[in-house]
Amino acid sequence: MSFQFELIKKKGEARAGKITTPHGVIETPVFMPVATQSAIKAMSFDQLDACGTEIVLSNTYHLHLRPGEDLIHQAGGLHNWTSYQKPFLTDSGGFQIFSQSRLGKCKINDQGAEFIDNLAGNKHFISPEDSITMQNKMGADIIMAFDHCPDGGASYEATKEAMERTHRWAERCMIQHQNSLEQKLRPEDQALFLIVQGGIFKDLRAQSVAALTQHDAPGFAIGGVSVGESREDIDEIVKYTTPLLPENKPRYLMGIGTKEDIVKAIEAGIDMFDCVMPTRIARHGAFFDKDGVRQLIKNSQYTADFKPLDSSCACYACTNHSRAYIRHLFRSQEMLAATLLSIHNLSYLIKLTNSIREEIFS
Amino acid sequence: MSFQFELIKKKGEARAGKITTPHGVIETPVFMPVATQSAIKAMSFDQLDACGTEIVLSNTYHLHLRPGEDLIHQAGGLHNWTSYQKPFLTDSGGFQIFSQSRLGKCKINDQGAEFIDNLAGNKHFISPEDSITMQNKMGADIIMAFDHCPDGGASYEATKEAMERTHRWAERCMIQHQNSLEQKLRPEDQALFLIVQGGIFKDLRAQSVAALTQHDAPGFAIGGVSVGESREDIDEIVKYTTPLLPENKPRYLMGIGTKEDIVKAIEAGIDMFDCVMPTRIARHGAFFDKDGVRQLIKNSQYTADFKPLDSSCACYACTNHSRAYIRHLFRSQEMLAATLLSIHNLSYLIKLTNSIREEIFS
Repeated sequence: MSFQFELIKKKGEARAGKITTPHGVIETPVFMPVATQSAIKAMSFDQLDACGTEIVLSNTYHLHLRPGEDLIHQAGGLHNWTSYQKPFLTDSGGFQIFSQSRLGKCKINDQGAEFIDNLAGNKHFISPEDSITMQNKMGADIIMAFDHCPDGGASYEATKEAMERTHRWAERCMIQHQNSLEQKLRPEDQALFLIVQGGIFKDLRAQSVAALTQHDAPGFAIGGVSVGESREDIDEIVKYTTPLLPENKPRYLMGIGTKEDIVKAIEAGIDMFDCVMPTRIARHGAFFDKDGVRQLIKNSQYTADFKPLDSSCACYACTNHSRAYIRHLFRSQEMLAATLLSIHNLSYLIKLTNSIREEIFS
Repeated sequence: MSFQFELIKKKGEARAGKITTPHGVIETPVFMPVATQSAIKAMSFDQLDACGTEIVLSNTYHLHLRPGEDLIHQAGGLHNWTSYQKPFLTDSGGFQIFSQSRLGKCKINDQGAEFIDNLAGNKHFISPEDSITMQNKMGADIIMAFDHCPDGGASYEATKEAMERTHRWAERCMIQHQNSLEQKLRPEDQALFLIVQGGIFKDLRAQSVAALTQHDAPGFAIGGVSVGESREDIDEIVKYTTPLLPENKPRYLMGIGTKEDIVKAIEAGIDMFDCVMPTRIARHGAFFDKDGVRQLIKNSQYTADFKPLDSSCACYACTNHSRAYIRHLFRSQEMLAATLLSIHNLSYLIKLTNSIREEIFS
């Protein structure tokens, strides 16, 4: 199957669609769980599957550092490496490198990004061509352009400079993507999405969309949100930028994942989103109640509470275990606590997304 | 179903049998995984089930300290508490208290054991009646008498004293077990096993068997092995003591679980054994190869080894993941490494036990 997007139904700006990839069909809008190091933390892939997952995101930055893209390539790509046969998406590493920049551990110029890694403290240099080659070798179904993601509080000038660099890099990414095909370094049907930048400035976002949509990319992402700007600014920019993107291409909002964020993003016309939050908060003992509000399982109110985390939820954790039992596991530092809370939190957000999809059809 | 044991076949001293419990049938010989705090570390109960598990052991000492037997009783017993519906066995806490004794944190007299716990450093006193009441409340299918387990290096005199105390305590345990039934504190068909002591001294082991088998207990265990004595002494004592036990009752060797131990125990006529070792070593990155030899997944020889842990193994880890991938998970401190290695190690020992059972029938 080659990469395709089909827009099936619109309701206001909200869209229901279908992405076809070499590893199966994804119904949009879709929430993508994050397998940072090519594994979802505290979960097996069959547990992930049971949450209703349709596509998984992995991080090029982390996998480049360990075990390295060449080993994954040697294994036959991410699907063989992990044995997970559903679609994968890899990010470009740009976001993680930007995070190092905030620690003063990164220098960016037109060539690419020089940074000190968070593992061994080694110096690295990654160009747009490098990022694409890494992603080509890892063989995800969807890969992302290498972008310059400035801080949410960056000035207009700095944001504009990062955006223009992102545009120049997008062209280099596409050239490398084509070269890798000729060198047989990647699957034929690997889709390269381009990333819109422009920070909180509407005119820059419009410029970025205009510049990038000159290219016939298979999909577009909105990057540079949730990087330190206010909640209101994020909402405003997403609402403004999304409808500017081509209607016949999937639209991906990067790094967004609270219940409120998801609802607003879909209303703005977003098709794809990802976030580490549901699994990260699970490891710290937090779970979503039926209203999507975070609750802490360690609280003493759950000591003898034999009800499930969410009585309306059909996930493995909720159909098998009580709050009291999971609280005991969490207090006893049993890994199973993180597993059960992660399963529930992912299931919750995926179910939420699916129910919004149904509403679009209603 | 009430508690029953059926001896089906003997081959030398080795036995194949069937234990019927209120929560289902167990084919013996059987390896029992250990859910110390009412969870198998790094595994869900469905993953445990897929390993071929027939009965699970939980530790009274740990569960008494947290969350407490009353909460588990309130939940409806261990099966409801964990939602695991296969048979449970609880130990008496005697072994863990003995471990505290080695740290100088325990005093034992005829009344019971006074000890400082390993969690909060609080002082506790547990009598045989207390231990049985705790186990009655937690409601496992099989519970164990409260025994005095001396150090493997203890003198003849000290070992004899501990043994005689164990015999006196056994009677008190049986009385409490009956009282709890009358007070409706326990399931009707809960089986109380008695524990043979006597250290490395054959005459004491024979005396202990003679004293305890005067009682019509549903099963007998050999305790006080693997507590510091030599491998040769363990083998010798197990080989000597096991055939002395009644043929029509299940025989449980406590805390034994290497491949060699299991093979020898079954040859001596043992029906049940348990050990934390397979899951504990998994969390430290060790797995059994096809010959049952421990290998370390972090070793660089596995860097690009895309074969399963054991090509002849049908467990979830071996049918889905490569050594290279699991090595990456382990080095990346992903919990999934412990999960996969635990699944494999438990599957290995259960498969080994099952294959010996088949040999008994051949």
